[in-house]
Amino acid sequence: MPEFMDVHHDMVGITTEALGEAHQADLALQDGEGVNFKHAWADPESGRVWCLSEGPDADAVRRVHERAGHPAAEIYPVPVQA
Amino acid sequence: MPEFMDVHHDMVGITTEALGEAHQADLALQDGEGVNFKHAWADPESGRVWCLSEGPDADAVRRVHERAGHPAAEIYPVPVQA
Repeated sequence: MPEFMDVHHDMVGITTEALGEAHQADLALQDGEGVNFKHAWADPESGRVWCLSEGPDADAVRRVHERAGHPAAEIYPVPVQA
Repeated sequence: MPEFMDVHHDMVGITTEALGEAHQADLALQDGEGVNFKHAWADPESGRVWCLSEGPDADAVRRVHERAGHPAAEIYPVPVQA
């Protein structure tokens, strides 16, 4: 299954609790799209959040984040890893 | 130990072999800075590469990447995770 890294730009001040709630919202919606959100990393100062997922394509990842109310600014496939 | 996500912008066309070599160059240099590069994800089409590390501070991460010959464009602490 392809993996994707997506980036959010606008989450300044995000807390562990808020990221956990956002991640749970993704998990609750992902099955309908065949997506699996694996991990999220956040920098509250810059507002950047990165989410690693696997799924059929980037549009499926995009739809889960949109329905959860926090659309991603960027989504990239990450077929090369080390 | 704090964790960091850094971003490279200029690695269009990167292959699994080239990312592996770049990652090994980081691993060979990281001990002197007390840094541990944990994983790297790359999108050959956009040239974006993300590296997850832990270390004492962002400058230590920056120095390892610079000495390895592939300076990061951005480095962020990621204290909030899910």
